[in-house]
Amino acid sequence: MREVSVSLGSRSYPIYVGPGILREVGDLARRHLSGERVLVVTNPTVASLYAAAVEESLAAVGFVVRRAEIPDGEEYKTLATVAALYDAALGAELERGDTVLALGGGVVGDIAGFLAATYMRGVAFVQVPTTLLAQVDSSVGGKVGVNHPWGKNLIGAFYQPRFVLADVRTLATLPLREVRAGLAEVIKYGVIHDAAFFAWLEANFEALLKLSDAAVEQAVATSCAIKAAVVSADETEKGLRAILNFGHTLGHALEAATRYERFVHGEAVAIGMVFAARLARRLGYFEPAGVERIAALVRRAGLPDAIPPDIAPEALLDAMRRDKKVAAGQLTFILPEAIGKVRIVRGVPADIVRSVLVEY
Amino acid sequence: MREVSVSLGSRSYPIYVGPGILREVGDLARRHLSGERVLVVTNPTVASLYAAAVEESLAAVGFVVRRAEIPDGEEYKTLATVAALYDAALGAELERGDTVLALGGGVVGDIAGFLAATYMRGVAFVQVPTTLLAQVDSSVGGKVGVNHPWGKNLIGAFYQPRFVLADVRTLATLPLREVRAGLAEVIKYGVIHDAAFFAWLEANFEALLKLSDAAVEQAVATSCAIKAAVVSADETEKGLRAILNFGHTLGHALEAATRYERFVHGEAVAIGMVFAARLARRLGYFEPAGVERIAALVRRAGLPDAIPPDIAPEALLDAMRRDKKVAAGQLTFILPEAIGKVRIVRGVPADIVRSVLVEY
Repeated sequence: MREVSVSLGSRSYPIYVGPGILREVGDLARRHLSGERVLVVTNPTVASLYAAAVEESLAAVGFVVRRAEIPDGEEYKTLATVAALYDAALGAELERGDTVLALGGGVVGDIAGFLAATYMRGVAFVQVPTTLLAQVDSSVGGKVGVNHPWGKNLIGAFYQPRFVLADVRTLATLPLREVRAGLAEVIKYGVIHDAAFFAWLEANFEALLKLSDAAVEQAVATSCAIKAAVVSADETEKGLRAILNFGHTLGHALEAATRYERFVHGEAVAIGMVFAARLARRLGYFEPAGVERIAALVRRAGLPDAIPPDIAPEALLDAMRRDKKVAAGQLTFILPEAIGKVRIVRGVPADIVRSVLVEY
Repeated sequence: MREVSVSLGSRSYPIYVGPGILREVGDLARRHLSGERVLVVTNPTVASLYAAAVEESLAAVGFVVRRAEIPDGEEYKTLATVAALYDAALGAELERGDTVLALGGGVVGDIAGFLAATYMRGVAFVQVPTTLLAQVDSSVGGKVGVNHPWGKNLIGAFYQPRFVLADVRTLATLPLREVRAGLAEVIKYGVIHDAAFFAWLEANFEALLKLSDAAVEQAVATSCAIKAAVVSADETEKGLRAILNFGHTLGHALEAATRYERFVHGEAVAIGMVFAARLARRLGYFEPAGVERIAALVRRAGLPDAIPPDIAPEALLDAMRRDKKVAAGQLTFILPEAIGKVRIVRGVPADIVRSVLVEY
């Protein structure tokens, strides 16, 4: 088992990563939590696979465990679901010193975290992510919340867990498409922060695709360590944290332009990363060989590396301009200067963006 | 104008107190806020009196100001009202760098603060309290939130404002009953922390009741300073902050036992303070003359000092046992040892509490 720490002063916490560690959650909870009760928030799919192991482990060390299941799917990431969870938490007699534990993917973690942040002005929170995307991305960094009919994640808070437990064996039950989508974020960490990790990915990608324990542990732990370093430097997203959005400017636009129906997030980010690399090359920041290394790894992950020809460049430009992260109409991209190093570039001229979009 | 500061590290903020300072909100906002837009959250009653002054002052220094009105009354302090405010904030195109400003009493502040805490993971928040209770209590300390059908303030967060502006002249339009209720909390600060302030109140109570500018400024600023000192030492209510609940153990029980219909909060707290003083005397912590000084000031404020005989002691004991703040069934009271000094006493035997209840 590896331990990665997220340094945030009095809100610092560890991430435990390893194969088969789900049953250690009780012992870790005893170490990190006070209180008597734990409310496990999960969905029916994950519950049928992993709830028993988690709940037995917690009960074995004396916690009173209750479960609240929420429907599976991003469309249930709403204030109405949170309202139902307030009722469930009160019904479970959860008190101020008690804990909410998220068992599942990013949607479960985001909703359960918002519950923890706002129930009785904040109770202890634990993340047990069971998807690759949640293990390397959404469970680290403290972003919690739900969607509003007018946009994603418009309702939310920054709220840190007491600890995160990532059992890499849970990925074995994940659909292949979800594994691939998670790999997009793993590749991202190499590009934005760690050339050696990127090279390690190039050398070990087959083992990773086969979900070998050692390879997945290494990839998840390193990804978490990179995200932790960035989040520690910028908890509430004032500056540096923006580099985590590498690939996301176009990625979000692709998702929005296709009404979140065509791509899973990681697929859109994969296309966005290759696009950002090409844009960086066009602007003279990045060398052609770097673009090809990123595109090659994306393809080995089974992810798309190009914009499908039926999506019009103008539709993507419009979507980028409407993005909430666009400050005062400026197009902002995270652009690689080398593998392992990116810069935040604001005010990229629309005609240059357009000319790279139409290259496809 | 007096300035009181609340020391909470990077979340420290000032409280400005003075007569006629409502029109300075724009200049203060320029000093403390970035962003372009301010959403003023208020209710129709307060809006008709003070919204124009606040909005003109903000507009004069260049802010784009929008207003969202919520219905007047504790019964609207719900998640549904917050949901309507998310729509209003999005409709006003409020972005991450912008501000929510609460203009009104405690209900407006609590709801608007929860909006600020959870809109786009937290935007800047300003409190402009217009009731005495909000000026000396609810606007200081960062507690924000709404009620759940099963209990008050069950949904909420700790979220600090960028600044608080308390214009003591706004109290002139407050119903007399609300002024008196606010004075209960003012008296409380003297008892829990500051014997000299208590003596000042005894000497200046007539001026305070007449709402003389100087007396109200002194009372509000000193109350805020005491609350700020307590909150600075214990932001998230782990220990010391409990002393702010002096008078509230029985106070909450009186409110609950009469279904929040008979007493306003300060009236119930007034009875609770005198009760706590009597209980302290019974337990041998406090001298009879101290009890009488507290009761006398409560009576001068026009507040009740005794439990009405039609409320059964057993009903109050039951309500105290059901209180969310009761840890493991123990009755906890904040008891004076002297004017200006209290202690937190856990596990007060029910039969002693009962015997003091039936003395009335």
